[in-house]
Amino acid sequence: MIGLEDVRAAARRLDGVAHRTPVVRSRTLDARTGRELLLKAENLQRVGAFKFRGAYNAIASLTEAERARGVVTVSSGNHAQALALAARLHGAPALILMPDDAPDTKVAATAGHGAEIARFDRYAEDREAVLAAAVAERGMTPVHAYDDPRVMAGQGTVALELLEDAARDEPLDALVVPVGGGGLISGCATAVTALAPSTRVVGVEPEAGDDVRRSLAAGERVRVPVAPTIADGQQLDRPGERTWEVIRERVDAVAVVSDAEIVEAMRLLFERVKLVVEPSGACALAAVLAGRPELDGARRVGVVLSGGNVGADRFAALVAGRPAAAGAQGARSPLAETRPPR
Amino acid sequence: MIGLEDVRAAARRLDGVAHRTPVVRSRTLDARTGRELLLKAENLQRVGAFKFRGAYNAIASLTEAERARGVVTVSSGNHAQALALAARLHGAPALILMPDDAPDTKVAATAGHGAEIARFDRYAEDREAVLAAAVAERGMTPVHAYDDPRVMAGQGTVALELLEDAARDEPLDALVVPVGGGGLISGCATAVTALAPSTRVVGVEPEAGDDVRRSLAAGERVRVPVAPTIADGQQLDRPGERTWEVIRERVDAVAVVSDAEIVEAMRLLFERVKLVVEPSGACALAAVLAGRPELDGARRVGVVLSGGNVGADRFAALVAGRPAAAGAQGARSPLAETRPPR
Repeated sequence: MIGLEDVRAAARRLDGVAHRTPVVRSRTLDARTGRELLLKAENLQRVGAFKFRGAYNAIASLTEAERARGVVTVSSGNHAQALALAARLHGAPALILMPDDAPDTKVAATAGHGAEIARFDRYAEDREAVLAAAVAERGMTPVHAYDDPRVMAGQGTVALELLEDAARDEPLDALVVPVGGGGLISGCATAVTALAPSTRVVGVEPEAGDDVRRSLAAGERVRVPVAPTIADGQQLDRPGERTWEVIRERVDAVAVVSDAEIVEAMRLLFERVKLVVEPSGACALAAVLAGRPELDGARRVGVVLSGGNVGADRFAALVAGRPAAAGAQGARSPLAETRPPR
Repeated sequence: MIGLEDVRAAARRLDGVAHRTPVVRSRTLDARTGRELLLKAENLQRVGAFKFRGAYNAIASLTEAERARGVVTVSSGNHAQALALAARLHGAPALILMPDDAPDTKVAATAGHGAEIARFDRYAEDREAVLAAAVAERGMTPVHAYDDPRVMAGQGTVALELLEDAARDEPLDALVVPVGGGGLISGCATAVTALAPSTRVVGVEPEAGDDVRRSLAAGERVRVPVAPTIADGQQLDRPGERTWEVIRERVDAVAVVSDAEIVEAMRLLFERVKLVVEPSGACALAAVLAGRPELDGARRVGVVLSGGNVGADRFAALVAGRPAAAGAQGARSPLAETRPPR
């Protein structure tokens, strides 16, 4: 299981490479929630999401020989772009396996960072086999989007920075973190448990994909049916194997939010805080705004805004309540990052 | 004329009250422009714009007796909300004179900060007379949106912070600042001239309201016809009297941008930087993206993103190129803050 030292090592590798994203304050949101909110703006991170941290740390952790052979992953989300950029910065080859129906914009953005893209048919081909072939034939190192200790440790630097910047004088009562596969929250919970044991770590999932909440309730990793949600970064059917081991030990609770609550948080962030945050990135704030019981008694609250990759047109459609664009996006590739490579 | 000591005094008054807004970096924009851009995110300031700094400094500079009698201004823009909030924080009454046709959302936001609102008919009533009556009858202190030394000094803290945070190791080649009535640029130029004399100060106006550029060319304050522009914070027909005295001495050049260039900057800020910036707030970046000759040779460039008060619906319409919403907004009250109170 990863420890604080892994997160600290990641922070040293990321120093001067990742943005040290600002902690944004909003008196409007404070007044509205009756709390003191410290918003960690990872939407301002490179490639627009915290994923850069883990991907970069993973590649930086490889030996020179491994780096020369390159990295491979299956992703059509933010991890794809993050790994592509991190590989380019290391001069390492990257192969990104993307389903045939991945949006062109995501494919182009990933290719724009110099990665090789291989498309596969999600319905006819076994993604694990596709990935295994790349590993076997080219000696590439797989870097999973979340179920990888180097990735988890990298994501933990989000909490490390927030604690350093915002909790020096007064500890946080809670840190609220979006949960997809669990890479971000497992890293963050590792830092918080070690450095601020009085701070509760609360995850937030969309109602439509509450696998981690149900797993915590069951005491074991369970698989849930995944319904469509606008929070496409969190449409996963069960926690990762490695992230689960950390989550069960170090996460205090998981709350859920509806798509409507997420959109309201996105609108408030846009109009009152002036930040562009994608649906998955806004769900932690949505839980705070909705006053979920998991946050009862927490006055000083860190909130991770995990990413901002939403186009202006889709954003407008979501905020206007137009279902077409949201549905079209929600329908795509919901399980693209579900299963860890073995 | 204001000096560095006035800006420093304003910074002390604002310490712990205004947000120290982050300097945001974007490697995407750096690569696209071939420069090193340091974006001062004043859209993240209280009330969503730098205007809070000047308004707060003005009220903090009053005597207790003056504060007790209150402040008054004519504004339907960001200054209205800024002065209303600054007055509330000081426990001072505020009277905001707004034209009958000011948008309801602006009126409600200003009233929401506890200010008294008085509407007037822009076509039938003389705004100067309305203002003078409030001053005479109630002993209120007028705080102009820009043509006030306390306001100008407050706005200068934007540059002071940027120089402290981003120019310690290496000076900026240029600082690029949106220009409306000149409050922001006169304060910023005052700080830069004193602290970083090698840094050029370049203002940016919309093509449709280039009164400051023409005034600099003429060597005197000239009045220009004002055509509609989406940059409603900059639709002024001539520089302020007091701001002009500073601008003529301390500003190196003024560039202009088109509405289309502003919209492109807004889109890039949204999609690549994840910041919501209103048209006037995006014009400095628009000039950098367009490679205006006033910036030739400037590699390391500070760019002030001056405000973010644009609703999600109007933003969507602007980025989609739909003229209706933009036109409707652009048509309103273009000269609301044009003439300084005497």
